[in-house]
Amino acid sequence: MTTAEQTRQRILDAATEEFATHGIAGARVDRIAKRSGMSKPMIYAYYGAKDQLFDAVFHAHVIANGDRVPFTAAELPEYAARLYDDYLADPALARLVLWKRLERESTGYLYPSLEDHDVRHIRDIEAEQRAGSIRPDLDPADIWSLLISTAATWAQASMTVVATSADAPEVHDRRRSALAATIRAGLCTQE
Amino acid sequence: MTTAEQTRQRILDAATEEFATHGIAGARVDRIAKRSGMSKPMIYAYYGAKDQLFDAVFHAHVIANGDRVPFTAAELPEYAARLYDDYLADPALARLVLWKRLERESTGYLYPSLEDHDVRHIRDIEAEQRAGSIRPDLDPADIWSLLISTAATWAQASMTVVATSADAPEVHDRRRSALAATIRAGLCTQE
Repeated sequence: MTTAEQTRQRILDAATEEFATHGIAGARVDRIAKRSGMSKPMIYAYYGAKDQLFDAVFHAHVIANGDRVPFTAAELPEYAARLYDDYLADPALARLVLWKRLERESTGYLYPSLEDHDVRHIRDIEAEQRAGSIRPDLDPADIWSLLISTAATWAQASMTVVATSADAPEVHDRRRSALAATIRAGLCTQE
Repeated sequence: MTTAEQTRQRILDAATEEFATHGIAGARVDRIAKRSGMSKPMIYAYYGAKDQLFDAVFHAHVIANGDRVPFTAAELPEYAARLYDDYLADPALARLVLWKRLERESTGYLYPSLEDHDVRHIRDIEAEQRAGSIRPDLDPADIWSLLISTAATWAQASMTVVATSADAPEVHDRRRSALAATIRAGLCTQE
């Protein structure tokens, strides 16, 4: 990494923590400057105002999740179980999504102007509906939404229980299995 | 309603809107006073500080949801479809839950000190597992979590799409059916 890349990364890391904790309105560029060891003018020069810095964090962290946990339409239950682990390992991910929902996009699609973000996933689901592994009677976009929401059952938005790394290994196993079994029976075709 | 009850209700209504929009840290008692037509000292006298006022709103709105949409363990798919309608009709409900998650209870159970809140539901699920309408191989608490998360697929926390009353009636029908079909196949036993 060049020095400029390192600087950008240090700012992004500090900003990720700040936005995940306090949201967009509650975030303070002062604290991001302090945590990253960079000056405020430097942060503005690299990323612009606070709103643009949030966009950069959201891209770098949330959009990048797609690369870390590649979507496998032929294996929806296994994909859901992998998402469980990813939300557990990286609580900032779902928190950034929630802040965006509460402070920016309160209705409709979460990624306006990034419609492309989910198009491939929905196309893959459609292909598997034709191939026979995913039930063909539901709209592919609805299947994608149902899958993501179910996979996030114990993620940071949970209306019941949010998983933590302090939970016993057998509790994680039980939830992962329940998730996979529900997705298998609910969204896949029964062999 | 007595005058005191009316006063309490006006404060609660104004506070519900304020907290649902801005969260706990972002809420301003000044604005609640203005919107309710009550003085700040009056609000403090009735409900205490801002944090206690949030608790009162959360109780009155979120806990009251249980009475509005009674849980029917023998009819999980229909219950999920009714929750879809309730989240749509009352966007404040899920937003209050999300703010509580982001600002107060970031992990574990959402209702600490209110453990009783879900105990009846889980007991009802267990009874239906014995009676044969709900699959017996999953933990009843996990079934409750999976049910609520799936039912909230298009609610305010959605990582994909949040439903709005501006959506076409056939879109709402399609989602309600998809939800019920997924819950029926995923969590109920197949007759």
